[in-house]
Amino acid sequence: MASIEFIMNPVREEPHFEIPSHCKAGVVVNEGPNFRVEVQMVPVPEPGPEDVLVRLNFTGICSSDIHVMKGDIGMPPMSKFGVRSPGHEGAGIVVKIGANVKNLRPGDRAGIKPLMDTCGSCHLCWDQKETYCKSAIHTGLMTAGTYQQYLVSPARYVTPIPDGVPDEIAAPIMCSASTMYRALVDSNLKAGSWVVFPGGAGGVGIQGVQLAKAMGMRPIVVDTGSEKRALSLKMGAEAFVDFKDTKDPVEAVIEVADNIGVHGVFITAPAAYKTAFELVGQRVGAVIMCIGIPTKGSMIFGVEPQDYIFKNLTIKGSLVGSRSDTVAALEFAKRGLLKQISEVYPINRLPEAVEKLRKGQVAGRVVIDFNWEEY
Amino acid sequence: MASIEFIMNPVREEPHFEIPSHCKAGVVVNEGPNFRVEVQMVPVPEPGPEDVLVRLNFTGICSSDIHVMKGDIGMPPMSKFGVRSPGHEGAGIVVKIGANVKNLRPGDRAGIKPLMDTCGSCHLCWDQKETYCKSAIHTGLMTAGTYQQYLVSPARYVTPIPDGVPDEIAAPIMCSASTMYRALVDSNLKAGSWVVFPGGAGGVGIQGVQLAKAMGMRPIVVDTGSEKRALSLKMGAEAFVDFKDTKDPVEAVIEVADNIGVHGVFITAPAAYKTAFELVGQRVGAVIMCIGIPTKGSMIFGVEPQDYIFKNLTIKGSLVGSRSDTVAALEFAKRGLLKQISEVYPINRLPEAVEKLRKGQVAGRVVIDFNWEEY
Amino acid sequence: MASIEFIMNPVREEPHFEIPSHCKAGVVVNEGPNFRVEVQMVPVPEPGPEDVLVRLNFTGICSSDIHVMKGDIGMPPMSKFGVRSPGHEGAGIVVKIGANVKNLRPGDRAGIKPLMDTCGSCHLCWDQKETYCKSAIHTGLMTAGTYQQYLVSPARYVTPIPDGVPDEIAAPIMCSASTMYRALVDSNLKAGSWVVFPGGAGGVGIQGVQLAKAMGMRPIVVDTGSEKRALSLKMGAEAFVDFKDTKDPVEAVIEVADNIGVHGVFITAPAAYKTAFELVGQRVGAVIMCIGIPTKGSMIFGVEPQDYIFKNLTIKGSLVGSRSDTVAALEFAKRGLLKQISEVYPINRLPEAVEKLRKGQVAGRVVIDFNWEEY
Amino acid sequence: MASIEFIMNPVREEPHFEIPSHCKAGVVVNEGPNFRVEVQMVPVPEPGPEDVLVRLNFTGICSSDIHVMKGDIGMPPMSKFGVRSPGHEGAGIVVKIGANVKNLRPGDRAGIKPLMDTCGSCHLCWDQKETYCKSAIHTGLMTAGTYQQYLVSPARYVTPIPDGVPDEIAAPIMCSASTMYRALVDSNLKAGSWVVFPGGAGGVGIQGVQLAKAMGMRPIVVDTGSEKRALSLKMGAEAFVDFKDTKDPVEAVIEVADNIGVHGVFITAPAAYKTAFELVGQRVGAVIMCIGIPTKGSMIFGVEPQDYIFKNLTIKGSLVGSRSDTVAALEFAKRGLLKQISEVYPINRLPEAVEKLRKGQVAGRVVIDFNWEEY
Repeated sequence: MASIEFIMNPVREEPHFEIPSHCKAGVVVNEGPNFRVEVQMVPVPEPGPEDVLVRLNFTGICSSDIHVMKGDIGMPPMSKFGVRSPGHEGAGIVVKIGANVKNLRPGDRAGIKPLMDTCGSCHLCWDQKETYCKSAIHTGLMTAGTYQQYLVSPARYVTPIPDGVPDEIAAPIMCSASTMYRALVDSNLKAGSWVVFPGGAGGVGIQGVQLAKAMGMRPIVVDTGSEKRALSLKMGAEAFVDFKDTKDPVEAVIEVADNIGVHGVFITAPAAYKTAFELVGQRVGAVIMCIGIPTKGSMIFGVEPQDYIFKNLTIKGSLVGSRSDTVAALEFAKRGLLKQISEVYPINRLPEAVEKLRKGQVAGRVVIDFNWEEY
Repeated sequence: MASIEFIMNPVREEPHFEIPSHCKAGVVVNEGPNFRVEVQMVPVPEPGPEDVLVRLNFTGICSSDIHVMKGDIGMPPMSKFGVRSPGHEGAGIVVKIGANVKNLRPGDRAGIKPLMDTCGSCHLCWDQKETYCKSAIHTGLMTAGTYQQYLVSPARYVTPIPDGVPDEIAAPIMCSASTMYRALVDSNLKAGSWVVFPGGAGGVGIQGVQLAKAMGMRPIVVDTGSEKRALSLKMGAEAFVDFKDTKDPVEAVIEVADNIGVHGVFITAPAAYKTAFELVGQRVGAVIMCIGIPTKGSMIFGVEPQDYIFKNLTIKGSLVGSRSDTVAALEFAKRGLLKQISEVYPINRLPEAVEKLRKGQVAGRVVIDFNWEEY
Repeated sequence: MASIEFIMNPVREEPHFEIPSHCKAGVVVNEGPNFRVEVQMVPVPEPGPEDVLVRLNFTGICSSDIHVMKGDIGMPPMSKFGVRSPGHEGAGIVVKIGANVKNLRPGDRAGIKPLMDTCGSCHLCWDQKETYCKSAIHTGLMTAGTYQQYLVSPARYVTPIPDGVPDEIAAPIMCSASTMYRALVDSNLKAGSWVVFPGGAGGVGIQGVQLAKAMGMRPIVVDTGSEKRALSLKMGAEAFVDFKDTKDPVEAVIEVADNIGVHGVFITAPAAYKTAFELVGQRVGAVIMCIGIPTKGSMIFGVEPQDYIFKNLTIKGSLVGSRSDTVAALEFAKRGLLKQISEVYPINRLPEAVEKLRKGQVAGRVVIDFNWEEY
Repeated sequence: MASIEFIMNPVREEPHFEIPSHCKAGVVVNEGPNFRVEVQMVPVPEPGPEDVLVRLNFTGICSSDIHVMKGDIGMPPMSKFGVRSPGHEGAGIVVKIGANVKNLRPGDRAGIKPLMDTCGSCHLCWDQKETYCKSAIHTGLMTAGTYQQYLVSPARYVTPIPDGVPDEIAAPIMCSASTMYRALVDSNLKAGSWVVFPGGAGGVGIQGVQLAKAMGMRPIVVDTGSEKRALSLKMGAEAFVDFKDTKDPVEAVIEVADNIGVHGVFITAPAAYKTAFELVGQRVGAVIMCIGIPTKGSMIFGVEPQDYIFKNLTIKGSLVGSRSDTVAALEFAKRGLLKQISEVYPINRLPEAVEKLRKGQVAGRVVIDFNWEEY
């Protein structure tokens, strides 16, 4: 047995990478409700025999990072795991590989996802539910996150990034687009369905809008402001309902959706749980997908049994995307169907970007360029 | 075109039935919270050209009848439709057919379901969701129900009853078993799944237990009392948890279900909405099916978004079974996999049976024999 | 019961239509291998109480018509049913309704499909397989077809045509687009899949190309000639492989499909059965859909058991679209995603159009305008 | 990262196993059409850091072994891989683990399957199609098989055997039952469906019969002889059609299946490809699953396009079961729903058992007990 090996890469000359002893990282200070983020120099870790060392070019900044640093969504604190850098969507390059690694080599493009690894030996890992694995390691919570430029990852869990997808687009795909792809697949909705994204001009929702469009569905965005309207319509929304300018936004959505109501509601913004059900209108068999994670203990989301029963309604939750979902999302990006949605910040302004997101002032996504400093 | 007809039954000699001018019927008096039921003589209706006249041998008594007569589940009152007899699960025989009827003939066995008709021309009727048709006519609410012995029904909506299934078993299949078959199918659970029926020794739940067993699932019943225990185990439950005798019934269910939690929860008794979610335990991808209809406005059923998301949980509603579901349920009965669960009462004691159900004193189902009087 | 009726249309003033005693019809002469078609005057039929009379504005001409008139696909001859006009895709207007008709009124737009009616009372009719109903009446074979301008149809089986879809587009949707929509749905392929249409620039295939595109799939057409190339690319094909100009067309398709092979093959042209399997290449889990009907007895379509097993291959057949499928296809047309693919001929040139199709000289579809005569 | 480890087993005292330098193995001599099998002593291999050493107690003997040794199903010869022992279904105990192994420990029960490993990093491995992985290592072909008592396996690919399933039952489950479970799942057939197993009293088919029964389907076996009849009926077949004693076996099957035809045909015996399609009768939407692998080049399996199209027929192939499928099959065994179907031979009579199977004289399955010698 020992002599049989998977030979997946032909021999080629390998590039050599100089690896520094320390690298830049956004680290959390005062973890908890009043956290702040600082850029510091931290040691570059050493990969084990099954691992690779990845040098990131870009990391996304995701609302979940805020929650992780605040510690308000019911997960244990980062400090419990000795972790100081959050972040779970990064894109870069493999710079060093462990002794047993065969599926990757130095120079390969590499993406880091919300999960750094799963056990691989449970029925959840086998049955396309790996992201729910009880032994899953959450990136940027249980192990150093993508706010740190050099990261160690199990080789088997790194996502290859295809040609034609720049790192600044690939980074947020690792989390937001992959998550939305999975939620769309989990919804079982078919092409031609009306799907609404309340708060859908945000970094996660807008990926859903693009993917829904690419899958033949008909996206509607409910959000506010001319910038978000323009972004939504450009990215494929058939309609944009400004919840501030519109007298009855729910009625406006229902009117667009054949005067019946939508087939699907994709909740990425916690505030949207309040009115999600109303958007279903009189539609039979609609699906409401729960994706955005609110503060733990802040709400119950449900309806009267009558509403489930007489409308054949489904409410369902979906966590992040798997390795397979991420590859599928990248494939849409490669075809040009997932476009640039990010504002790029230099690494030194990472703390400022986090603050902006914390205040809800980001349309689309912010990504950080590790190779760019601006003073 | 007019000369092309569906010829579905070979010519045979037709039996002749004497049809009385009046028949026995359980009618509601003082519709509302303090209703009561009386047995009265009412006129036998005349079928239209597309209809048949059915003489019922048995009707089931269902909890929904109580709600309809009380008027507490958010439907309009019977009196609005000029209807005085509730009931929506009956089994009998066709005694007269309309001029254009071709799919049934006098002497054919016939079942009456919760829906008396649907429009047949909408996408819900076409796409296996006919029971949600906006023009559906609810039996025993919008048209005379099965507490009345002679009923008119559109020929196309009558369910043929196969040989080998006696009328007293067929009657409750029309609603309870058909509904549970549909809920089991809608749950998408596969053979080998742990499915719990809180309050499952009742008339609807116990049909679910038998069908789940017949579909290869592993039923658990949570209910109370030695009679219900015996019934549940006899009908196929792998475990019975007595919620009065057991210190922690939720924990007991989870322990049976591989110490993880159930794959499916089927809520037929409104009281079960309270603890349904806990029975899921740590199971990923579980499904909670809402079937039992509580008093309108009495509760919201849902969980925290976190619970949906981290457990990949689905909550879904399912109404009654369609024509196809009813035929499928009858097929299980024909194979002996849906057994007798009913206590039989003579027609004169119908009011007493309704009272007993109203007080929650029925294990399994009560059916009324129209051909039996006992004084 | 008799007093309860579906009220689906508000009262409005009804237009009055003059109905002639005779109308134009393309009729078959010398049914069999050497048939020909003539335009004759035939009596306008009278609708029964459940029927409507439709005056067609357009009929499509479909390859199946040729087979029906030739009698070479294993169906009984038209003459057996006393039918002289083939055709099964028509669009027009309701001009008269039967006494019991409630879902349609004079002036409503109306489409006629390959099936004129099904029994409505069998499990196939209930379970989204109505087109396989054993009592289905095939339009233009068992009852007069759409080559005849005035047709009687059961009201319940007429397809309403929505605003925004002109009759000349709606007519071929009744068969070709509806059929392809169903085949695409039956294939269970998801967005992002490579799907190839051998002979896909023909009247049926090109509808599949457009619908596949609209459903997020990636169509490839294999056909020949610059006209068909232009049509295919315009209608959404990502690649066109000219089987005459290309050295190895199979290899060319596989190369486009990630150098692995396609996920789906949709066979609308009988000649394509020969090489369909090769297009799968090394793809695991591919699906080959059989749609085009060759001469009865002319071929077996299959592969070695090894090929099914090691490639997890599926070969499946799909007949025409149901009422629901047709409405779905029309919805895509309404959104502009099913464009004009037809060449329009005046009614007097119907025989010429049939000849052209018989000789395989049609790119896209020919439709006949009943209101246009040209001499 | 290196400090985070999956901790799946609490500390316990580990048993110590004496590992011999050599062990018994059935080895092929004269690989090819005239092969024979001998029992020899071979070196016990050493596990690598990610591997475990398994001491088998039982191995099954499968028809595929015969094909592998004959070299007639289109796979390369064993000798190409330096392999001399076939066999791909074994059950035993872990006796030694590699340095990095965390999911297994000495003393754990362990099953060996038809695949010894897959790459784990391709979309097939991720998407429940791991058995089709292009880098899959076939046990007993590309690496030493279960005819050898001590085997090295990647730890992640070993199947844990639950309490309550004896090794002699577990061994054939690794291949035959797991394969049939997968084929039944892949068929998408629902509870209540008629499923026929031509040649179904053989070692693979009879597992399908038991599993189909356990999943609520209605199995019919077509085979011959009173022994096979008794076995089939005992294992859950609702009907047994003896193809030698019955005038028209196809007609007999159709008659059982509601006089319409079966919903599913599961072909485990290559001879059954000949008549499989006829068993479908007039059933619409039936599925024929190809499982048994005939001699390469010996047949095409398919039907006329008309038969696919007018019957909505599906023909599909399914290879062996995945890790998940095997665990599911073991779960049925644990519940007593997969019973003993094996005849047990001592290790010294392995060559005789192979001969018996080669001649088609085995009803059910033969398993070899490595711990039993009989002279």
